[in-house]
Amino acid sequence: MSNAIVGQSGGPTAAINATLAGVIRGVAECCGDIQKIYGMVNGIEGVVNGNIKDLTYLVNEEENLQLLENTPAAALGSCRRKLPNIDSSDAQEIYNKIFSQFKQYDIKYVFYIGGNDSMDTVKKLSRWAAKIGSDIKIVGVPKTIDNDLFGTDHTPGYGSAAKYIAATMQEICHDNAIYPVKSVVITEIMGRDAGWLTAAAALPRLIGGKSPALVYLPEVAFSNERFLADIERKFEKSDNITVAVSEGVKYADGRYVCDACESGSDEFGHAQLSGVAVKLKNLVLERFGCKVRAIELNTPQRCASHIASLCDLTESVRIGQSAVTAAISGKSGVMMTFVRSDSACYGVDISYENIESIANKIKTVPLEFIDTKRGNSNVTDECLKYILPLIAGEPFLRYENGIPKFFEII
Amino acid sequence: MSNAIVGQSGGPTAAINATLAGVIRGVAECCGDIQKIYGMVNGIEGVVNGNIKDLTYLVNEEENLQLLENTPAAALGSCRRKLPNIDSSDAQEIYNKIFSQFKQYDIKYVFYIGGNDSMDTVKKLSRWAAKIGSDIKIVGVPKTIDNDLFGTDHTPGYGSAAKYIAATMQEICHDNAIYPVKSVVITEIMGRDAGWLTAAAALPRLIGGKSPALVYLPEVAFSNERFLADIERKFEKSDNITVAVSEGVKYADGRYVCDACESGSDEFGHAQLSGVAVKLKNLVLERFGCKVRAIELNTPQRCASHIASLCDLTESVRIGQSAVTAAISGKSGVMMTFVRSDSACYGVDISYENIESIANKIKTVPLEFIDTKRGNSNVTDECLKYILPLIAGEPFLRYENGIPKFFEII
Repeated sequence: MSNAIVGQSGGPTAAINATLAGVIRGVAECCGDIQKIYGMVNGIEGVVNGNIKDLTYLVNEEENLQLLENTPAAALGSCRRKLPNIDSSDAQEIYNKIFSQFKQYDIKYVFYIGGNDSMDTVKKLSRWAAKIGSDIKIVGVPKTIDNDLFGTDHTPGYGSAAKYIAATMQEICHDNAIYPVKSVVITEIMGRDAGWLTAAAALPRLIGGKSPALVYLPEVAFSNERFLADIERKFEKSDNITVAVSEGVKYADGRYVCDACESGSDEFGHAQLSGVAVKLKNLVLERFGCKVRAIELNTPQRCASHIASLCDLTESVRIGQSAVTAAISGKSGVMMTFVRSDSACYGVDISYENIESIANKIKTVPLEFIDTKRGNSNVTDECLKYILPLIAGEPFLRYENGIPKFFEII
Repeated sequence: MSNAIVGQSGGPTAAINATLAGVIRGVAECCGDIQKIYGMVNGIEGVVNGNIKDLTYLVNEEENLQLLENTPAAALGSCRRKLPNIDSSDAQEIYNKIFSQFKQYDIKYVFYIGGNDSMDTVKKLSRWAAKIGSDIKIVGVPKTIDNDLFGTDHTPGYGSAAKYIAATMQEICHDNAIYPVKSVVITEIMGRDAGWLTAAAALPRLIGGKSPALVYLPEVAFSNERFLADIERKFEKSDNITVAVSEGVKYADGRYVCDACESGSDEFGHAQLSGVAVKLKNLVLERFGCKVRAIELNTPQRCASHIASLCDLTESVRIGQSAVTAAISGKSGVMMTFVRSDSACYGVDISYENIESIANKIKTVPLEFIDTKRGNSNVTDECLKYILPLIAGEPFLRYENGIPKFFEII
């Protein structure tokens, strides 16, 4: 028997279940090379704890797979577990446990869907497999709304988050424009280190829609005084100013602008940021004394599947399917990637990169995508043209009594 | 010449422009009884200031009317201007100004789209018209996401907000369910005095979807200790608890649970509430020390036209059209209303009520809609069955490059 196992790890996205469905579709199409497909419940923790679920019943279940593709978050559950380095003292015990589970279930192929931290898990599992001479193929499949993984043109999950942000920001700009009094709305957008999500706030500009007057990315040092000067300058043209700001903006000395840290840090040492919009709101209130509102877009950015990008969901399925093909053809210790075609029309090929060259690196927004003419407080049209095809298309959602219908596994 | 004027007032909704389009459609269908249709820019303020725009170019502009119907906020701009009582000392000056504008533009019909405060304006304009013996017909058309107007089964704008809240809460519940650790997510929902919007958070329950375990409406006195006991009880069944709470919840002594008041009060004396989720988050953190997140759904509740209710938009157009018919048939000093049919299938007739019996009253959620079996911390199925038809159907939105296309008038 050759079986496979798939897990999801890290934060939710609107597309991570589409990739899970893609892996299951890949198994259906693999001509019998894989007999059974198992799911890790709560990622690698499920393997450690023996919490493993047979998903073979879903193969060729077209209706359920389509529902799964449109369901947000992680249908198998997730985790934020960091595996020890393979030569650390506690490595033997945990990796033996994991690989003995693989043996028990006749696992030959492991698929792990996740972001930067999850690729760290793929890297370590691959290293351990090499160390013990196991021929199990371990393939990482990217996902993150942050779009900050190396080695891939973009990440599954980003397009849907970007589409939600673009549509919502346009709506907020309309909402903020209705009263003939000075008003500032400050919208806080996710992205600890990279400004890709915040950049998406400016997308309505490309279709002539209302978009934020000011956009602040974490790639450029933030200054309170420059921010207030920017607001003052915008007030010369309009009473109603909408601002998009990344939760991760920092001052020149490296301190975060926000000072609130929600619920401490996770196992990977990442602080949960929140509060920059409120902080800037108070600055504006103090300086201008005008109507001002802080909005934190919060978790809907990563789970608003009701306005997912069809391009994103389709590609997320495809990269899951391709992971199965790659594993069967012998690839291991790799992460699947998107390669954008050079032609004028948007298109992607699916490829892979050695996990060692990818894990634990962060791809930020290049400085040439940040608009120096606008005082570094917006993004260039070139940046928006890079993002635009990723938000294209609207998926066909099944609504029941006016509410999207989702699929649950666990 | 018999002309008409239409204005929008109060907070935005996803459906207020659908009603504006309905009034314009009504003019198109009125067999020449109305020659020109004007728009007040920023509601009654536009009349006072002479900021009036000819909208006749939109009559029979089918494509633009359809775009307008799907555009959020107020395409004519809005205001929060409170008119003086008609026998106050400053009444003469302002009402003379308003009615001389009406005369200048040959206005015979006035349509004012708004919520409770705007119906106060309709009431006062009607009283002034009666006082001076003017035959101008003044008709109010309701709109408010809050669903708290008297005399109508429900309000245009509520269905779309309820649909957004239901869909988003289901997504947040999925998002909160993925980690095998104790977690509480507290979601703050609009509604200063009435819990209709918060009640909509429970809608996914009716389709077997994930919905919040606890739902707190402002109609029932809030208690910190009971809230913490509710959380403790829910932790016995699940690690991941999602809470929906109205921004307007109060303690038994009448104090708001939130203590933050954003940007002071408006002209009608309503405080802008915000901060209850953060306050409850701190209570949970202190008692349980678990992962906890506060989410304020914020303005997208009133402007997320990308997930508007087709039922709501269709009815909002119809009530605008019917206002024109009513005015031409001689009605004045009325607010248009929805009357739900008694049959098993949902349906509404459009009628009207004397504005004197409606304005300045608030329709809260009846106590029998609040679930005493659940310790007053949820709503009954009967409540949800009342709301459910109002969120039915998805409008056909025109997307351009993946972003909804809107229509702008001013």
